[in-house]
Amino acid sequence: MKLFLSVINNIISTDEEAKIKAKARLDSLAKPLGSLGKLEDIAIQLAGISGEVFNEIDRACIVVMCADNGVVDEGVSSCPKYITKTQTINFIKGVTGIGVLARHEKMDIRVVDIGIDGEISYPGLVDKKIRNGTYNMAKGPAMTREEAIEAIEIGIDQIKDLVDKGYKLIGTGEMGIGNTSTSSAILMALTGCSVNFAVGKGAGLTEEGLKNKKRVISKALEINKPDKNDAIDILSKVGGFDIAGIVGCFLGAAYYRVPIIIDGFISAAAALIAYKLNPIVREFMIPSHNSLEPGFQYIMEELNLSPIFNLNMRLGEGTGCPLAYNIIKAATSVITNMATFEEAEIVDDYLIDIRKD
Amino acid sequence: MKLFLSVINNIISTDEEAKIKAKARLDSLAKPLGSLGKLEDIAIQLAGISGEVFNEIDRACIVVMCADNGVVDEGVSSCPKYITKTQTINFIKGVTGIGVLARHEKMDIRVVDIGIDGEISYPGLVDKKIRNGTYNMAKGPAMTREEAIEAIEIGIDQIKDLVDKGYKLIGTGEMGIGNTSTSSAILMALTGCSVNFAVGKGAGLTEEGLKNKKRVISKALEINKPDKNDAIDILSKVGGFDIAGIVGCFLGAAYYRVPIIIDGFISAAAALIAYKLNPIVREFMIPSHNSLEPGFQYIMEELNLSPIFNLNMRLGEGTGCPLAYNIIKAATSVITNMATFEEAEIVDDYLIDIRKD
Repeated sequence: MKLFLSVINNIISTDEEAKIKAKARLDSLAKPLGSLGKLEDIAIQLAGISGEVFNEIDRACIVVMCADNGVVDEGVSSCPKYITKTQTINFIKGVTGIGVLARHEKMDIRVVDIGIDGEISYPGLVDKKIRNGTYNMAKGPAMTREEAIEAIEIGIDQIKDLVDKGYKLIGTGEMGIGNTSTSSAILMALTGCSVNFAVGKGAGLTEEGLKNKKRVISKALEINKPDKNDAIDILSKVGGFDIAGIVGCFLGAAYYRVPIIIDGFISAAAALIAYKLNPIVREFMIPSHNSLEPGFQYIMEELNLSPIFNLNMRLGEGTGCPLAYNIIKAATSVITNMATFEEAEIVDDYLIDIRKD
Repeated sequence: MKLFLSVINNIISTDEEAKIKAKARLDSLAKPLGSLGKLEDIAIQLAGISGEVFNEIDRACIVVMCADNGVVDEGVSSCPKYITKTQTINFIKGVTGIGVLARHEKMDIRVVDIGIDGEISYPGLVDKKIRNGTYNMAKGPAMTREEAIEAIEIGIDQIKDLVDKGYKLIGTGEMGIGNTSTSSAILMALTGCSVNFAVGKGAGLTEEGLKNKKRVISKALEINKPDKNDAIDILSKVGGFDIAGIVGCFLGAAYYRVPIIIDGFISAAAALIAYKLNPIVREFMIPSHNSLEPGFQYIMEELNLSPIFNLNMRLGEGTGCPLAYNIIKAATSVITNMATFEEAEIVDDYLIDIRKD
């Protein structure tokens, strides 16, 4: 609790002066003003985070939070619960979607057991298990308030450790059968958005399964009555250990001043919780792709963020992060390596012309 | 003319059987069906192009077609004409947007002078100058029909040479002050779309400049009366050498069976011309980013393509191509390196479950 409070009360906004300098540098480059769009926005954001105009992001890691959700007992997922455990091991083996994409982009992965159901031990797996999955939120709170804080602090600690090890960029990933249900419940509780907006088919429910999922989520909200002005109350009653751990990653990234990538729907739900706990956290977030889960777009609007990719992806695991890492590196390359108007030997009358707009 | 006709009459559709095999492989991987979205679509497309399920795209080149446009005399651009020549040299020096991004993604660049106004010679510049820029389309045809075919054949030849040299993926780029005007004119002539849809501010026109640009483009169409059913008539009357060269690249890519990336608005206008000449060409195209030029989205709808990136870019030069190259390589990595359900030790009852949807 002490760590949690210390972190949320001591997050400092990004450096305005560095952002202004970065913008000036970008405006001096031989191109129409702002014509590299989000590559420029990202370069400015990185300057704000580090306090330096030029940044080199050469080491990045995705934290994959893995946990089970009691609500799976209600038949909300097309996948059986044991997939959480199986895929967690596959993450470490590097053969899942995130494993392959992370290797492709030279991004490391840290896999954390924050609440998988059952015994699991594998070289490389970080054991931070709180317990064997949450309780069934359709029958009562998924976890205690203390457990939610504990999970958040685990996330914060992971970021501290990664920053200490020299990582300059964090990605967020997860594995937890049933976690689109918890994410939808969080979205509804935080924003009041309707069940039809918030709930999708996840990995691949039938129409009948989708109806059941909506019914279960509505019931969980009715039974638990989470307080919409208390993000921790929402997180503990209808969230999951995986989501809570990612909330900690977002808070930790802002506190330790590293940029952090939002992946899909579950990661975005955690981002929204973190934002409600301290809105400055948003300045450290970089969205990756537009998830196909219907609630995702709603969260982006709440956060006023617009993703880089339209890839029609809905796998989760953190799969948007390695792809975004490459774009972030491209942004650092643009601000560092492009010639200025002067270096490009484009003379002053043109400069005046193009800067008028 | 002989080469042109031989190419457009001998483009063969992608390999359906290889695409079916690639889809089957993707569906056997340990993830919900289709959950990697466009990464899967691209892997299937590449299989169709090469005829092989597994592809390695390890060498890629962007062809940057550079030429001047006579219509610049009408004040349609915020940039003076000499920028075409200056930036062409900067492309080779590697200090422009495309130079920096191509180096970042290890993509080569081939810079072609297909009609720059003035003497220009620089080591590495490919001299294929047709003449010192087109005529002013607001006063008559920009070029002759023969010149349009010549420019297209130059594009085809570039692709042949690159494929002979072992390149497996082509990007399209351009430099030509005034070429958003020619692109808008092509879009309007081909589709009948209105001037307000088709024309944007390019590099950075004022409101007054935009009004003039719309007036000039409308006048060019009125004077030249291009035949909407004859893409070469449109290209020669209101196009540019740069666009015609890129049309040749698209046709050549389909003929020599390599995937080819669409960059921004100008590249997309060339893609649309190529598509009208032979619709099969579309099967070889991969769109990169959503250009901020208003006509771009219209062309994507005509081509029924949806870009990978939302980066708010509007620089041109081919800057979307290196970024797309990375995503294309990621797609080849997914289909090649991800574990199947069997390899991931996810047992059969789940398999049956997840495949039902």
